[in-house]
Amino acid sequence: MVVEQLESPDPDAVVEAAKTAFRNGAMLTVEAECEVEYEGRTSGYLGPGDRILVAKPDGTFLVHQPTGHKPVNWMPGGGSVSTRVSEGEPVLLARRSNPTERVEVRIHECYGLTRFDATDGATYEESGTEAEMHEYIAENPDVLEEGLRIVEHERETKYGFVDFYAVDANGTPVVVEVKRIQATLNHFDQLQRYVSLYEDGKTPAESPGGGVTAGDGVRGMLVAPSASDRVKRALRDNGLEFVGLSEFGLDAKGSTEAKLTDF
Amino acid sequence: MVVEQLESPDPDAVVEAAKTAFRNGAMLTVEAECEVEYEGRTSGYLGPGDRILVAKPDGTFLVHQPTGHKPVNWMPGGGSVSTRVSEGEPVLLARRSNPTERVEVRIHECYGLTRFDATDGATYEESGTEAEMHEYIAENPDVLEEGLRIVEHERETKYGFVDFYAVDANGTPVVVEVKRIQATLNHFDQLQRYVSLYEDGKTPAESPGGGVTAGDGVRGMLVAPSASDRVKRALRDNGLEFVGLSEFGLDAKGSTEAKLTDF
Repeated sequence: MVVEQLESPDPDAVVEAAKTAFRNGAMLTVEAECEVEYEGRTSGYLGPGDRILVAKPDGTFLVHQPTGHKPVNWMPGGGSVSTRVSEGEPVLLARRSNPTERVEVRIHECYGLTRFDATDGATYEESGTEAEMHEYIAENPDVLEEGLRIVEHERETKYGFVDFYAVDANGTPVVVEVKRIQATLNHFDQLQRYVSLYEDGKTPAESPGGGVTAGDGVRGMLVAPSASDRVKRALRDNGLEFVGLSEFGLDAKGSTEAKLTDF
Repeated sequence: MVVEQLESPDPDAVVEAAKTAFRNGAMLTVEAECEVEYEGRTSGYLGPGDRILVAKPDGTFLVHQPTGHKPVNWMPGGGSVSTRVSEGEPVLLARRSNPTERVEVRIHECYGLTRFDATDGATYEESGTEAEMHEYIAENPDVLEEGLRIVEHERETKYGFVDFYAVDANGTPVVVEVKRIQATLNHFDQLQRYVSLYEDGKTPAESPGGGVTAGDGVRGMLVAPSASDRVKRALRDNGLEFVGLSEFGLDAKGSTEAKLTDF
């Protein structure tokens, strides 16, 4: 069982499902009309309204209103979340010590509840911008292919900007899409859209003097530090090419923390 | 329809449900095994893993891993979230301009999806701590009742701290629970536990010399700036009392912002 969903569960069912989630270390999501109280550094109260409640196995607790990226109330991991029926209504209580604080949610009506046994070993890896990679390629087009000539950098199309529009040694146009992270199917997807756009001969009309005649055959090249076999296969199967620039491999640390503090 | 839940929807069903949610201004929650990309101030990649995705009507987009209170990736309100099927998999794309950034999630397996038509007019109201209120009461017990005498402040019990243990003009013990925010059923609940504890005569054993003989009748008093009729009724029906100290009414602004910046 990866997820269990309950629609409009009664108070006892809410408490039972929540207890099971806490016991099993599952993520709990609740859609409910509720009241929220905070007590700790200050005291706070949020009157009745519809919110999404998220409880994580590490004790993290989030109360999200229908707008805004910040939870209206929250508790970091390290504490504990408990549940009980009180006055005929389910109550979720998240608390921790130092500082001693608590967020208590009284559920007036539970519309939906989801228990999610989630497994996630991945870590967010962050790298620099694509700009430095563009610079490098603009100055050294040979790293992509011997004799490749850059015709235009960041050409606008109806699908967005093509990173590089180039011509190879045989004069065949090449659409180059550059990614700073490991190539994904989304990137393949994007490159394919650009290439089909060229093949439809739409682009010259959109950016005159582009140096390519409508209907010309065109090559599509995805440039990234690396790519999974799945992505390489997708490219190959669709007549597209991959060029790996491993010198732009990721460095996970540091920047990730920086990213977090941005929040 | 307040919520619609789908268990293990196929790619087309995910995209259709997501589009309906975006069209109707509903909150969307997805439990899925997915890959995440970020492109903007930097580039970032999060490999496959189980996460909860939340999209709000204002364009807010959150990616939550099983631990931690901060989303691993997110987009504030103001942008837009779109969806499509790509290479046979559902993709959610959240993007905004200035700064131009995008979070793109490729769903490898969708375990669950919930569409939530949420309505929430409430605003989080924050006030100071209870400390100042305790001080005020300790110095002016008469504001609670003529002739009331404070015997002990913050007496520990197995259920936590009783704010004030007092004795009225007739020598009857009074358990006083003080709240800095509008009284709620949770507070009523808490007071009732303390009172029953006294009536069970457990407390004297726990804190000797408490000045109350086991079995004595005891009054329970909830003190707060205000209380809803529902809470007042619950108290009355259970032989408990409410004392309103309106001078400690809430001031919503400012402190709320302070709270947000803590995040």
